[in-house]
Amino acid sequence: MQPTSAFATVGIISRPRRSNLVAVVPPLLQWLEKRGLKVVHDEETAGSLATPAQGKRREEVAAQSDLLVVLGGDGTLLAAARVAAPQGIPILPINMGSLGFLTSFTVEELYPALEETLAGRFSISERVMLHVDLLRDGEIIEHQNVLNEVVINKGTLARMIELELAIDGSFVCRYRADGLIVASPTGSTAYSLSAGGPIVHPAVESFIITPICPHTLSDRPVVVRDSSLIEMTLSGNTESVFLTLDGQKGIVMQPSDKVHVSRSKELLKLIQPPKKSYFDILRGTLKWGEG
Amino acid sequence: MQPTSAFATVGIISRPRRSNLVAVVPPLLQWLEKRGLKVVHDEETAGSLATPAQGKRREEVAAQSDLLVVLGGDGTLLAAARVAAPQGIPILPINMGSLGFLTSFTVEELYPALEETLAGRFSISERVMLHVDLLRDGEIIEHQNVLNEVVINKGTLARMIELELAIDGSFVCRYRADGLIVASPTGSTAYSLSAGGPIVHPAVESFIITPICPHTLSDRPVVVRDSSLIEMTLSGNTESVFLTLDGQKGIVMQPSDKVHVSRSKELLKLIQPPKKSYFDILRGTLKWGEG
Amino acid sequence: MQPTSAFATVGIISRPRRSNLVAVVPPLLQWLEKRGLKVVHDEETAGSLATPAQGKRREEVAAQSDLLVVLGGDGTLLAAARVAAPQGIPILPINMGSLGFLTSFTVEELYPALEETLAGRFSISERVMLHVDLLRDGEIIEHQNVLNEVVINKGTLARMIELELAIDGSFVCRYRADGLIVASPTGSTAYSLSAGGPIVHPAVESFIITPICPHTLSDRPVVVRDSSLIEMTLSGNTESVFLTLDGQKGIVMQPSDKVHVSRSKELLKLIQPPKKSYFDILRGTLKWGEG
Amino acid sequence: MQPTSAFATVGIISRPRRSNLVAVVPPLLQWLEKRGLKVVHDEETAGSLATPAQGKRREEVAAQSDLLVVLGGDGTLLAAARVAAPQGIPILPINMGSLGFLTSFTVEELYPALEETLAGRFSISERVMLHVDLLRDGEIIEHQNVLNEVVINKGTLARMIELELAIDGSFVCRYRADGLIVASPTGSTAYSLSAGGPIVHPAVESFIITPICPHTLSDRPVVVRDSSLIEMTLSGNTESVFLTLDGQKGIVMQPSDKVHVSRSKELLKLIQPPKKSYFDILRGTLKWGEG
Repeated sequence: MQPTSAFATVGIISRPRRSNLVAVVPPLLQWLEKRGLKVVHDEETAGSLATPAQGKRREEVAAQSDLLVVLGGDGTLLAAARVAAPQGIPILPINMGSLGFLTSFTVEELYPALEETLAGRFSISERVMLHVDLLRDGEIIEHQNVLNEVVINKGTLARMIELELAIDGSFVCRYRADGLIVASPTGSTAYSLSAGGPIVHPAVESFIITPICPHTLSDRPVVVRDSSLIEMTLSGNTESVFLTLDGQKGIVMQPSDKVHVSRSKELLKLIQPPKKSYFDILRGTLKWGEG
Repeated sequence: MQPTSAFATVGIISRPRRSNLVAVVPPLLQWLEKRGLKVVHDEETAGSLATPAQGKRREEVAAQSDLLVVLGGDGTLLAAARVAAPQGIPILPINMGSLGFLTSFTVEELYPALEETLAGRFSISERVMLHVDLLRDGEIIEHQNVLNEVVINKGTLARMIELELAIDGSFVCRYRADGLIVASPTGSTAYSLSAGGPIVHPAVESFIITPICPHTLSDRPVVVRDSSLIEMTLSGNTESVFLTLDGQKGIVMQPSDKVHVSRSKELLKLIQPPKKSYFDILRGTLKWGEG
Repeated sequence: MQPTSAFATVGIISRPRRSNLVAVVPPLLQWLEKRGLKVVHDEETAGSLATPAQGKRREEVAAQSDLLVVLGGDGTLLAAARVAAPQGIPILPINMGSLGFLTSFTVEELYPALEETLAGRFSISERVMLHVDLLRDGEIIEHQNVLNEVVINKGTLARMIELELAIDGSFVCRYRADGLIVASPTGSTAYSLSAGGPIVHPAVESFIITPICPHTLSDRPVVVRDSSLIEMTLSGNTESVFLTLDGQKGIVMQPSDKVHVSRSKELLKLIQPPKKSYFDILRGTLKWGEG
Repeated sequence: MQPTSAFATVGIISRPRRSNLVAVVPPLLQWLEKRGLKVVHDEETAGSLATPAQGKRREEVAAQSDLLVVLGGDGTLLAAARVAAPQGIPILPINMGSLGFLTSFTVEELYPALEETLAGRFSISERVMLHVDLLRDGEIIEHQNVLNEVVINKGTLARMIELELAIDGSFVCRYRADGLIVASPTGSTAYSLSAGGPIVHPAVESFIITPICPHTLSDRPVVVRDSSLIEMTLSGNTESVFLTLDGQKGIVMQPSDKVHVSRSKELLKLIQPPKKSYFDILRGTLKWGEG
């Protein structure tokens, strides 16, 4: 049988914690192979197979695939985004639990969505990613692309962070707070929203800067253009501060460290349910605008 | 003497309530005329002249000028913006009282700023304006361009408004609130900020939708792209509702009226203090980010 | 038949707009009279009777009753509270539409609730009321007791109000805002909540002072003891300002008018569903704390 | 010379980090001894003396004193409060840096304030303290009195906490948040304010429950009577959670741990500047209500 689409190889990325994967993964592989598609999967997906098979590292899965099927929650998708975006391949996000902002297909919609996607009938929502550099003594000691947000926050028992924000080289203000979030529009409905930030449509080319528990009453979320370079510098006497990327990786910061955030050159391509608008998905997930 | 710049005619728009205009306007006219410039002024400015002279309507002043000097507060500037933008001429905004977001030159800076501007040494901040249509039974019965915001709000003694928001034809949500604000980035630091909206840099091509005292706890400000068409429809049984444009004009609405907001084709050109960034002006006006 | 309780006369207060009253009121009268109780009703309830009967003014209904059955929404209850509290008689609040904070019995629960109440098995939640005086040139020109809140707010097209707040004779601060709310704990879940105020349990002896759209970013809701005298003085140049009492009565204010708010000597006695806590009712009405 | 007041012994508690203590402490001791008063000081104060002298533990200092002079910031005062309250002795709080909410005398006011206090001319603000118990498997494994707040918060890299709140045995709601604060009115202007809580006057007998970055949009601060027993139970699968008391002590919590908060039997007696109201101090410290 001939491949039904431009997608010759399909990659599968999942999280083993989701117990129902055992029921979902094996038939999915069969279904794809029946259609003449090559399938590659990551190490975590391997654990959901009846006959244990070697999985590949996520980067390899993405490098060999034309389409990524991601089975999991928003956390799984954030990890998959980092490997899919550099390859420019789209993600079909299947939620294994309750609907997320990013994983907008249910497991019941898996096969209909695959049929449509493989037949070339799908729409893609392109999402801007953030490029973050951590600088120490002027050198980049860590860099990464993230989809949702970059957070600088205090250690649990520390009092607060003090940092200075500059945009495109101009001083903006000094924060005394529990932390500071720089979010993409995609991330505006995640942690930034909890901290009081606005909901920003993915098409607005912007970053959202939201303080966490600011000590100054007047600190408000600020939205700036995503062509900006955002520079945050820790005040010298700040102790126990962490840089957290997409809620998944925590890096201990040193006094006087700088964090630079700019727009990544890569975009995440997210396959979307065809008849749902951004706000339809939002209402469902946030129980928002009902009342 | 030859005109010192591309500006052959300078228009003056002011507010007579500002008592210090009597001391400012006559020498300003002399100063400009000495430099060989033609000066036109509006009816309100006429009242600040020693020898009573006929003023022109603001639209005429703008139509005949290459540059508008606006003497007043943010309210005066909002009115001047509506006549300057269609002519594509820049505004030099001079604040007669305390500094505003829009009127960022002090009266002490009037002559230095004029010198620089006439010599061609100035930077312009282009500001997106909102185009608003009020529709009744499908017909546009009122339309206008505004700089800051469009507000639909309840009459003082009414209970609340109920309205439905759609963006680009898709339903977004239903609001039960005291009112709803659609602001430009320029307007994000005006009424929208009081109602809990974020600060949005003028370069972010967006509209900010902020509810006023929403009855549903989960209603949050929403930022959408300014290429969007925003449609607000009053629920049928809503009584005593007003459409307010830039805080200056109130129009009584009828049940089932619709308000459409889109990006105006015109831009406001605002002359800016050369060494101040957007955030410098913001900090000064908001007493923001200090603490 | 002997009256089954200490309640010899039952008053009925309702709102005629609620169309289902026609089905509810006549059998309720019969049911009460069958039990040997005397029934009095107000003018609005009279409209729901098959055989038109004269109704009494609400004050008279309350004066002649030992128990008030209120059929309606929170608005009806606010009006009933003002006549019940001076008489010290309890209210059995029956909601004719969706559940409110105050009207916590459904129409299906009407007869079971009445049975229990008449048998003396009921719990009462005592609610503090606000006493408000409007002073002009030092004289009280209007005074009233209200249950939820006192609001000073700007007219629809006015720019803002400016007022000074003092507590027990000490200056607190100056507000520039759309308005200012002084709420009782009962009113903390009504308008004050929409304006950003906290939820305050009825047992906390306090007033909640919440600004509406404050122009100063740092203005926060303030909670003070209900033994305090709250004094609000309009700044002299303020125009088009209204004093609104429980959302029902709007009084035009003059520059330099003062509003005094203190704890009323009267308490409202509200019969409560026996097995529901305050927070149970809150969760149901606010769809709160679910997620 | 005879002691000038009911205060025979004065205790001194300070923080050695404040470098100016070396200039303040020795003359203070001399001044007090000249007046025939006995002086005791803690170990940290000992380090500010020219001739090294043994200091006592804070508990001992408090036990032997009739009045505590506290030199430091709000942090020093929070520590001193815990030893002063059980002895029922008043604290004279002297701020060594910028004014705090609690330390409302400047170092320049030290001797005038002492003169007045020793002469019996002072007013005391009594502050309610929180009693907190940490329960594991039904047993109290830690208990303490705190002045400002009890915080349950997630570890820096953890996702969130999930906990259930009950008041006086009734379920209130479930929180999914970065953390939850239970503050006294005194603590309402500290961390709770940063997290969005209201300002609560110390005379309002209440606790303020404020979520930190709640994931549910509708979560609002709640104010309850301080006669309530507040019970918080960690959901079973929560990992990396800390209990923090007055921002000074962090205790690692286990899944299913419970935290009980109630009103302490002890009150803190805080000597207040005679002519400043609570709101005067507030305005100065918060730069609040100015604009």
